[in-house]
Amino acid sequence: MNETMNTDVILTAALTGAGDTVGKSEHVPVTPEEIAASAVEAAEAGASAVHIHVRDPETGAPSRDNALYREVVERIKETGIDVVINLTAGMGGDLVIGQDDPTRPDEGTDLVNGLERLPHVEELLPDICTLDCGSVNFGDGSSVYISTPDMLRAGAKRIQELGVRPELEIFDTGQLWFAKQMHAEGLIDDPSMFQLCTGIPYGAPADPGVLQSMVRLLPAGAQWASFAIGRMEMPWVAQSILLGGHARVGLEDNLYLSRGVKGTNGQLVEKAVTIIEALGARVATPDEARKKLNLRSA
Amino acid sequence: MNETMNTDVILTAALTGAGDTVGKSEHVPVTPEEIAASAVEAAEAGASAVHIHVRDPETGAPSRDNALYREVVERIKETGIDVVINLTAGMGGDLVIGQDDPTRPDEGTDLVNGLERLPHVEELLPDICTLDCGSVNFGDGSSVYISTPDMLRAGAKRIQELGVRPELEIFDTGQLWFAKQMHAEGLIDDPSMFQLCTGIPYGAPADPGVLQSMVRLLPAGAQWASFAIGRMEMPWVAQSILLGGHARVGLEDNLYLSRGVKGTNGQLVEKAVTIIEALGARVATPDEARKKLNLRSA
Amino acid sequence: MNETMNTDVILTAALTGAGDTVGKSEHVPVTPEEIAASAVEAAEAGASAVHIHVRDPETGAPSRDNALYREVVERIKETGIDVVINLTAGMGGDLVIGQDDPTRPDEGTDLVNGLERLPHVEELLPDICTLDCGSVNFGDGSSVYISTPDMLRAGAKRIQELGVRPELEIFDTGQLWFAKQMHAEGLIDDPSMFQLCTGIPYGAPADPGVLQSMVRLLPAGAQWASFAIGRMEMPWVAQSILLGGHARVGLEDNLYLSRGVKGTNGQLVEKAVTIIEALGARVATPDEARKKLNLRSA
Amino acid sequence: MNETMNTDVILTAALTGAGDTVGKSEHVPVTPEEIAASAVEAAEAGASAVHIHVRDPETGAPSRDNALYREVVERIKETGIDVVINLTAGMGGDLVIGQDDPTRPDEGTDLVNGLERLPHVEELLPDICTLDCGSVNFGDGSSVYISTPDMLRAGAKRIQELGVRPELEIFDTGQLWFAKQMHAEGLIDDPSMFQLCTGIPYGAPADPGVLQSMVRLLPAGAQWASFAIGRMEMPWVAQSILLGGHARVGLEDNLYLSRGVKGTNGQLVEKAVTIIEALGARVATPDEARKKLNLRSA
Ligand SMILES: [Zn+2]
Ligand SMILES: [Zn+2]
Ligand SMILES: [Zn+2]
Ligand SMILES: [Zn+2]
Repeated sequence: MNETMNTDVILTAALTGAGDTVGKSEHVPVTPEEIAASAVEAAEAGASAVHIHVRDPETGAPSRDNALYREVVERIKETGIDVVINLTAGMGGDLVIGQDDPTRPDEGTDLVNGLERLPHVEELLPDICTLDCGSVNFGDGSSVYISTPDMLRAGAKRIQELGVRPELEIFDTGQLWFAKQMHAEGLIDDPSMFQLCTGIPYGAPADPGVLQSMVRLLPAGAQWASFAIGRMEMPWVAQSILLGGHARVGLEDNLYLSRGVKGTNGQLVEKAVTIIEALGARVATPDEARKKLNLRSA
Repeated sequence: MNETMNTDVILTAALTGAGDTVGKSEHVPVTPEEIAASAVEAAEAGASAVHIHVRDPETGAPSRDNALYREVVERIKETGIDVVINLTAGMGGDLVIGQDDPTRPDEGTDLVNGLERLPHVEELLPDICTLDCGSVNFGDGSSVYISTPDMLRAGAKRIQELGVRPELEIFDTGQLWFAKQMHAEGLIDDPSMFQLCTGIPYGAPADPGVLQSMVRLLPAGAQWASFAIGRMEMPWVAQSILLGGHARVGLEDNLYLSRGVKGTNGQLVEKAVTIIEALGARVATPDEARKKLNLRSA
Repeated sequence: MNETMNTDVILTAALTGAGDTVGKSEHVPVTPEEIAASAVEAAEAGASAVHIHVRDPETGAPSRDNALYREVVERIKETGIDVVINLTAGMGGDLVIGQDDPTRPDEGTDLVNGLERLPHVEELLPDICTLDCGSVNFGDGSSVYISTPDMLRAGAKRIQELGVRPELEIFDTGQLWFAKQMHAEGLIDDPSMFQLCTGIPYGAPADPGVLQSMVRLLPAGAQWASFAIGRMEMPWVAQSILLGGHARVGLEDNLYLSRGVKGTNGQLVEKAVTIIEALGARVATPDEARKKLNLRSA
Repeated sequence: MNETMNTDVILTAALTGAGDTVGKSEHVPVTPEEIAASAVEAAEAGASAVHIHVRDPETGAPSRDNALYREVVERIKETGIDVVINLTAGMGGDLVIGQDDPTRPDEGTDLVNGLERLPHVEELLPDICTLDCGSVNFGDGSSVYISTPDMLRAGAKRIQELGVRPELEIFDTGQLWFAKQMHAEGLIDDPSMFQLCTGIPYGAPADPGVLQSMVRLLPAGAQWASFAIGRMEMPWVAQSILLGGHARVGLEDNLYLSRGVKGTNGQLVEKAVTIIEALGARVATPDEARKKLNLRSA
């Protein structure tokens, strides 16, 4: 008797993220051209979907520039590769608490309102965009990721109007609670889609017990995935599908293929595919993912 | 075989809190005199400890005024009642994100740095003060409770120097992670003391599975309690001790004795004692609590 | 957010059981007259249902004599008391492995086939009878409780034909698996009814984690209760309803009201009612129980 | 933060078992020669240990013949291959309840006392022998595996005297309870060694929640593994190490390498090694296993 394992796994490649990783691995894609190429590499390695941030082509710093998103998406589409497009809408939530006066943000702050995090979504109408469901300390200093209920309800409503499907990024159990609240209010269509993000200091740890307790609280019929960052990225592919979820890997979450060996997005996807198949499951095709998630492109 | 239930329960009465409750129940103590009287009532009903906030005597609004804390503590001590004193140090973390410009806080904001949350602790040197271990959305609008790693390390260090014992307030699993990190860094002395706060939107829900997953992650030898707010306050007394924890009730967390019937702190404590004893456990005396928690007054 | 707690609790009093308890408490009812009187006392104290074994009126030893069951049931009905009747059908499964030759049972063995455990059910057609869903060591010597899949399928089929509702007694996770298998085969009607029995050596321990893992595996729509024996009886009333279940207490499971103080069934029920109500729940009336469980008498 | 994953995994190959599998896969080793060759193949593929049953060379039926065990062990040792030897001591517990008279066993019964299950252990003094910690239904008919507390205490004591290390086979949570009881009585030396067997009808299901609840109940310092049978064999390698355990695969538990493709023990081990390494862990060498488990050959 095992009733929980997922055998048709939507595998997402999180290509570049917003982390300070560009100097740490030459494989982290920076320019739209590189990001699109990495998307193709990931899709060819078997990813069902790609989760996309953009970066300043000069500095590698995370960016919210529409033109960059547009170029990435166009470049991917031009290749004709078949892959589900998932654009982050999580940028614009960074608040660095002032050292002198905590009410006056320090440098590094990039904080805008809910709707202001969505212009690229409005323009590009991707299959999926993310929605980060709460505020939480980010890292070990004075950074807080800010996403308030007011911002989230405004964002969810607009995403719903656009016919884009929101992937609810959950960084801890309280964020899951609020996401369910939005779902109960009709702001999130069925099937709801959850990404249970673990191992990011200081959100939910990559702990099987915490994950299990969150999975048990998901709305009926929800589609969900979970990932962990760093060295728990690959083990978490197994843990997530064992508990019935989909999976995510990629350079946003982890740079290493194995101890000391840096990898590309394609290589990380390949490794995830190996695990998924060794466990007797398979990766869903993009079309299967579209159907499961009820995407506009389905 | 049951190895987890706690049969010597430290019962804390959270007397008044900082919530918008003054108009909702005439039993919520406001003036130092009322708060001290409520402490005595709670202790006489069996509480081992009292957790104290202060309020503006005129308006009932939450306050950080040293003089008010001093008056409450002195009044309690004058009565000669035996009870462990636990002062909040969680005030001064309220950030209301600006509607127009999210980087410019709106009215209602009361945000100061870590050390600035401690003057009453410095002066009064209570047995215990609280330390809220992270940032999290608070309520359904635009309020965020802010407590960054920088603030927390500064606060923990100072509390340690003062010889006061910090009760680590944990509002979600990521905050537990950071609290453990501080413990690992030597900023928290053994036995570490955790308060697992549940049911407060949007922190950890009052869910037995989530609680269990947190309990499993506590440091070895930790002393811990858990409470839930609202109608789950009393059930959570049972849930906490069943999993090995201490308990907390009081008007900070819940106004009702039963459906539609408002209670005093003494009455809420009495009810908790009934539950604890009906389950075959007992409430620890203040002296037993001092010993278990290694308080300065032990 | 708490979605699991049960606030309408069917409370069963397990009046006498089959344990070697008659000499240990003068409150354990033995004769049909005593058992019926104890049923009335329990119902008056608030029990929704009574779970009944019978004993040899002379020796106090457990019995399977139809006449005794009949007398108990008639006596209860004559009083006009309103209570759901639940008769054990678990007797006749005791195998004492031979010390010299393990294939030749020793004294104490009372082992009959599945249908032979049902004559009193056939005759008296109670609302509910129990069905013990597997084999397991019983106690610390050489006794094994035997209930094989062959026996269980035969029994379940007959109980279904009789229109009696089976309460599936689950002593460990594997028995839950088999019970679900019978449910899947159509041998158990909806709503399925489970009793998760804990703390009996050497079945499932009275551990909140084990209980939670079993609850998560129940069929959709199942009605369930859980009890623990000995000093965990009362705590388990709280644990069971916190996880969404019904409750059971009584002298079959525990003789003590508190340390050193023996109680009657009525007193144990009273204490359970105190706990249930202190937690903000209430006890279901017999009629409410009949409806929830879809009993023939509903 | 992840504190539970095991990164030095003792991998056991369960070579042949006692199941009715000989006709189902030509890879199941039957003769001592075949079993020894399979042990070598498994060890060369990376197994740290081999778990051994023997079979009648003519019929393939499970056997308890000392001479067969001796031949297998001698043949393995002659090859000079380095691998930990783990001999089953679980044979001799099969009771088939009589259809006509349940107190008179039917054909298929092979039930002997605790000490009578140990002659090959007495003679061959392997590193490890198994001890099946309770009675439980076995399969869907009338078979019960019998291992009473009396048998188990006698067996544990003798194994301890012999200086052999017992691997405690746990088929459900109640068996874990009894194993801990033996440990508490001093019958099991530290570090205690547990094998949490899942997915075998009708013992504990291959459910992550049930496994987690068992892991939480293990004695401090215990070494443990968990396996699942059938198609959950490979996923369970991941689940076990994610929760901190060792792993086991092999033809005793599962015949298939992937859907429709039968494998050898060596191939199953290879696949498990792939999973373990893809998750960032490694397989312990036999010498590392000896040290961790404090084996006589260490
Ligand atoms: Zn992202
Ligand atoms: Zn407070
Ligand atoms: Zn009974
Ligand atoms: Zn075996």
